[in-house]
Amino acid sequence: MKYSQLFIQTFKETPSDAQIISHQLLHRAGFIQKSGAGLYNYSPLMMMVIQNATSIIREELSKVGGLEISLSMATPSELWKESNRWDELGALMIQFKDRSNRDLCLSPTNEEAVVDYFRKVAKSYKQLPVCLFQINTKFRDEIRPRFGLMRAREFSMKDAYSFHIDRDCLDKTYELLYQAYSRIFERMGLACMAVEADGGAMADSGAKTHEFHVLADSGEDELVVCKQEAWAANSEMAQTKRVDIVYNKSTDAMELIETGQHHTIQDISKLLNVKESNCLKTVLLKGKKENETSYLMACCIGDDEINIAKCMKHSGISQLEFADESDLKELGFVRGVLGPVGVDSDQVNILVDLHVDNEAGFVVGVNKEGFHVKNMILNRDIPVCTQADIRVSRATDVSMNGNDIELCRGIEVGHIFQLGDKYTKALKASVLDKNGKAIFPLMGCYGIGVGRAVSAVVEQLADENGIVWPESLSPFQVVILPLKSKDDDIAKAGQALYEECQKNGISVIIDDRMVSPGFKFKDADLMGFPHQIIIGETFKNKEEVEYRSRQSGKKESLRLAEWIPFLKEALKDK
Amino acid sequence: MKYSQLFIQTFKETPSDAQIISHQLLHRAGFIQKSGAGLYNYSPLMMMVIQNATSIIREELSKVGGLEISLSMATPSELWKESNRWDELGALMIQFKDRSNRDLCLSPTNEEAVVDYFRKVAKSYKQLPVCLFQINTKFRDEIRPRFGLMRAREFSMKDAYSFHIDRDCLDKTYELLYQAYSRIFERMGLACMAVEADGGAMADSGAKTHEFHVLADSGEDELVVCKQEAWAANSEMAQTKRVDIVYNKSTDAMELIETGQHHTIQDISKLLNVKESNCLKTVLLKGKKENETSYLMACCIGDDEINIAKCMKHSGISQLEFADESDLKELGFVRGVLGPVGVDSDQVNILVDLHVDNEAGFVVGVNKEGFHVKNMILNRDIPVCTQADIRVSRATDVSMNGNDIELCRGIEVGHIFQLGDKYTKALKASVLDKNGKAIFPLMGCYGIGVGRAVSAVVEQLADENGIVWPESLSPFQVVILPLKSKDDDIAKAGQALYEECQKNGISVIIDDRMVSPGFKFKDADLMGFPHQIIIGETFKNKEEVEYRSRQSGKKESLRLAEWIPFLKEALKDK
Repeated sequence: MKYSQLFIQTFKETPSDAQIISHQLLHRAGFIQKSGAGLYNYSPLMMMVIQNATSIIREELSKVGGLEISLSMATPSELWKESNRWDELGALMIQFKDRSNRDLCLSPTNEEAVVDYFRKVAKSYKQLPVCLFQINTKFRDEIRPRFGLMRAREFSMKDAYSFHIDRDCLDKTYELLYQAYSRIFERMGLACMAVEADGGAMADSGAKTHEFHVLADSGEDELVVCKQEAWAANSEMAQTKRVDIVYNKSTDAMELIETGQHHTIQDISKLLNVKESNCLKTVLLKGKKENETSYLMACCIGDDEINIAKCMKHSGISQLEFADESDLKELGFVRGVLGPVGVDSDQVNILVDLHVDNEAGFVVGVNKEGFHVKNMILNRDIPVCTQADIRVSRATDVSMNGNDIELCRGIEVGHIFQLGDKYTKALKASVLDKNGKAIFPLMGCYGIGVGRAVSAVVEQLADENGIVWPESLSPFQVVILPLKSKDDDIAKAGQALYEECQKNGISVIIDDRMVSPGFKFKDADLMGFPHQIIIGETFKNKEEVEYRSRQSGKKESLRLAEWIPFLKEALKDK
Repeated sequence: MKYSQLFIQTFKETPSDAQIISHQLLHRAGFIQKSGAGLYNYSPLMMMVIQNATSIIREELSKVGGLEISLSMATPSELWKESNRWDELGALMIQFKDRSNRDLCLSPTNEEAVVDYFRKVAKSYKQLPVCLFQINTKFRDEIRPRFGLMRAREFSMKDAYSFHIDRDCLDKTYELLYQAYSRIFERMGLACMAVEADGGAMADSGAKTHEFHVLADSGEDELVVCKQEAWAANSEMAQTKRVDIVYNKSTDAMELIETGQHHTIQDISKLLNVKESNCLKTVLLKGKKENETSYLMACCIGDDEINIAKCMKHSGISQLEFADESDLKELGFVRGVLGPVGVDSDQVNILVDLHVDNEAGFVVGVNKEGFHVKNMILNRDIPVCTQADIRVSRATDVSMNGNDIELCRGIEVGHIFQLGDKYTKALKASVLDKNGKAIFPLMGCYGIGVGRAVSAVVEQLADENGIVWPESLSPFQVVILPLKSKDDDIAKAGQALYEECQKNGISVIIDDRMVSPGFKFKDADLMGFPHQIIIGETFKNKEEVEYRSRQSGKKESLRLAEWIPFLKEALKDK
C-alpha cells in the first residue's frame, strides 16, 4: 500500500479527553476517531489491526472446538425478563421501543440470547459439550466512558458461552479456554497475567473465575501478585495477611469511656494512647437482598480499609454502598461512634474481618455520641456476627503462606468464568441426560474486549515516539521511507524495493509523500510499523539502505538487493 | 468438521411467517434463527456462508482501491441534524436517549457519519479520490419486517462511499464500482442484472444510479427488461411506449355531457361508447414541497395507471400519496369526476402523462357531480400543465426504440448511486482544490445487503429438496455420508476419506450421526453442500464410493483411493 492511497491523517495534538497513552496515540496516529461520547470510528489502518486480532481469536477458539455464531445486537425484552435482568441491569442497558411499541434493548452482554439460541437447538446430552462464540458489537451506556477504546460505550466483544452436562465437563472446557486465552494474548504480544477474580452475582459458589490482566499504571483494577507463588488475584477477592498486629490479650471487662468529639481512628488512638491496630473501624452499608433493603455493619482493624466487593460476596447482599445520614438516623445510629456492641442482629447483619482476633480486646464506638468502649472482645461481647476476609490488601501484607506480595494495577483484557445453571434454569433450557431425565446444563462464559485488548497492546509496548506494534497485529510489517522525495534515484529504489516486497508476500507500505525526512520519520515512529527501511543519503553514496527496528531501535545497513532475503528471514513464521 | 460437533438442528416444519423459499430453507436447514420480529441469529453454518460472502466483497472492493473502515453503529443526533435527516427519516430510524439525555440513533445508513469521518481527515484535493467502505450492522425499523433476511430490521450491510473533486472522477469510480459489483454477484453465483433506477431525493438530477437485481417471483421490485437492447430499468423509472392507442383527432369544441352516477373509466367508456384509451384517468395526490403541503393532479390514458414514484420525480414533490376526502373537499373537488379543466394551477399542479396526445380529444371529468366533458384537448383547453412519463409500464408496451419488453420481478441485492454534493455541502466538508479554493467534493454511494444477497442465492438456486450452495459460498465443499453407521468398514472408510480430504485442504464435513440413510440424504440435500460422497452398499460389494453433485444430480462411482484426485480436480480454482 502507498501512504498516499491510505487516506491517513496524523495529528500533533492530543485530544483534551485523552488521559492515557493508548487513547492519545491511537488518535494521533490516525487509527481511531471519536464519533460521540464513548463512540469510535476505525480507520483503514485500525481495521487491519482489528482483523489481525480477530483472526488470532478465531483461530485459537476454533482450535478448542469453538463454533462461531452471531446473535442479533437488538434483543427483545421478553428474553431479559425471563432471567429478571430487564430491570436489574439498570441504566447500563439502552432500552427502546420500536414502532409497534415493543420493548427492545441494545445487548450489553448475551447470556439470555445465547441460552435462547441453545434451547432452540439442544435436545439431548449427546449434543454437549458445545462452545458458541461471536465477535459482535455490544453497547453499555457507561456512566463515564473514557480512556478511548478501554471504556467505550459501543465496542466489539468476543463473547463465548459453553454448555455442559456436569461440572467435570465444564472444568475441562474452562481449562481449554484458559489455555486458548493465554495463547491469544501471547500471540497479540501482550505480557498477560491470569488472575483469580470474583464471579460476583453471576457465579455459583465455588465456581472458577479468572481475569486476564495486562499490568499497566493506567489499569482500572488493583491486583495482588505473589511472584514466589506465581499467584495473582484481583484485590476484590485476594486474601492476604498482616504480620504487624500485636493484639491486646487482656480479658478485662468492657469499659465505657468518654471520647467527646473524637471520631476518627487516629484521634481515638491518640486520645487513649492505644495503637490504631487495637481499635476497630466500623462502617454501615446498605444494599439489596431478595429485592429488600438490607443493612450490613462491617468492622475491620482500625488502620485497615473495608473492601465493599468482598462484603457483597460474603454477605450475599448486592448493590452495597455506604449508608447515608437518613439511614443512620432511622436505625438509631450515630456517625463517628459506630460499633457492633448492642446492635440488633435481626435488623443489621454484622460482618467482621478475619484479622479481628475474636479473643482480643479492641476500642470501638458504642453508638452513643461522645462515647467508645475499651476491651470489646468479639467472642464475649458480640453474640451474633460473621467473620470473613473483607479488608483491602496492603503492600506490607504477605500471602497466606507468608510470602511477599506486590500491589499493582492491571487492564482487564479477558474474563472467563463458570456461570453454573443460573441462565439455563431461568430460561428453562433443559436437555435430556443419559437416563432421559431433563437437566439444566452448566454454563461457562468467556469474554475478550477486542478494542480494549488492542489498546492494552499500545499501552504496554508504546514508547515516547509512538505506537510499537507487534508483528502479529501491525497493519504492515515493513515501512519504506524514501527520503528526498524529489531525488529520482531514491524514488526509483524505493519503488523497486516496494514491488519486491509485494512480490515476496511481505506486507509493506511506502511513504510516497513529498514531505521532509523529519515528517516521514515521525509518522513512521508514531504509527508503529515494526520494520523501517530508510533510503537516503547513504544510498546515494554507497548504494546502501538502512534498516531500523521500531521496537529495539537496532540498525543495520545492507545493499538494496540484500534486503528481501533479510526481511524474509526476519519475518519467518510470523 | 464432524456433523456431531457442529451443533446443527434441522427442521421439517416451516415457520408460519416464512412466505418465501429462502426464509423457509434457511430456517429449516438450521442456518438462521429468529430472535424477534425482523431480528435473526446466525448459526455456525451461516457464519461460514457470511464470511465467504464478505471475503468476496472485501477482495473485490480492495481491487478497486476501497479502504475498509468501521463507523460506530450508534450515532449522535447532531450529525443528522446537520443534513436535516434527524426528523426526515421518520419511524424507520430508532432514536434513543442515553443516561446523560443525549439523543442518539441506530444508524439506518451512514452518509452523515462517513462525511464526518471524511472532513476530519481530508484537507486537499490531493487526497482524492477516496472510496471508504464498511461491512457493518444497520438497523431499520421496517413497518413490515418479512421474508427472513430479505427485509430484516437488523442487518449486515456493506456500504461504500466515494469522494471526488469533479464529476469525471466520480464517473470513473462509479464505473469501477459497477464492475466490482458485477464481479461480486457473479462470484456469489448470482445471475444478476444491473437495472437503471431512480435516485430519488438522494440524487442530483442527471446523476447515475443502478440497482443490481436477481430475477425471482418473490422479488419486491417490478422491473422492465428489453432483452434485445440489453436494457433493464426499475419500473419506477422505466419509460416504455404503448402502440395500441388510436387517438381522437377531431377538433370539435369541448362539450359538457351528463354522466349521472357513472364514475369509473369503464362505466364512462360504455356509457358514451368511447374507447377507454380515449378517456383520461385523473387522480389527486398530496405531498410536501419545501416543507409545505403541495397538491398534484396527475392524468394518464384511461386504461393506464399512475406511477407515484415517477410523479414524485417529475413534480419535485416528496412523500406523495392519494389525497383523501377532506383534501378533495377543501379544494372543492368531487371524487369520480376529477379532471384538469378549469383547475387553478396556482393551487394544484397538473402533471399529464406523455401518452396523452396534446392535440387529441379526450373524455374527462369536470369536477362537477354528474358531468364529464368530451373533446378536451390538452393544448387548447388546459392553459398550464406539464407532461412527463408518469404511467406504469405494461407487458404489451414496447421500448422507446420499438422493441419488445418483459415485466419481471427482482430482488434488489445491490444499489450504487451518485449523490453529488448534497452531504458534503450540508456537513461543510470542503477540501482545497488546485487553486486553493474550497470546494465540496462529489460523492458516490454503494450498498450491498449481505444477508439479502445470500438469501437471493438461496432463492435463485434452491430446488425442491433444499438449498443448493455455489462452491464460493458453501460452508463446506464436500459432505461425506457413510450410510449404515454401525457398519465398521463403512465407518472406517468414511473416516479415512474425511482425513484425506482434510490433509488435502478440501473443506469437508462428515455426517457421523447414528441415523438412517434417509435422514442423512435429506439433511445433506436440505443444507446444500455442493459435493456429496456416499459410502454405502456398493462399497461393501465393490469397494466403490458414489459421488453426487447437489446441483446437477450427476452421479459417478469410483474406488475410494480415486476420490482425492477427482475432488481436487473438481474444486480447482474454486
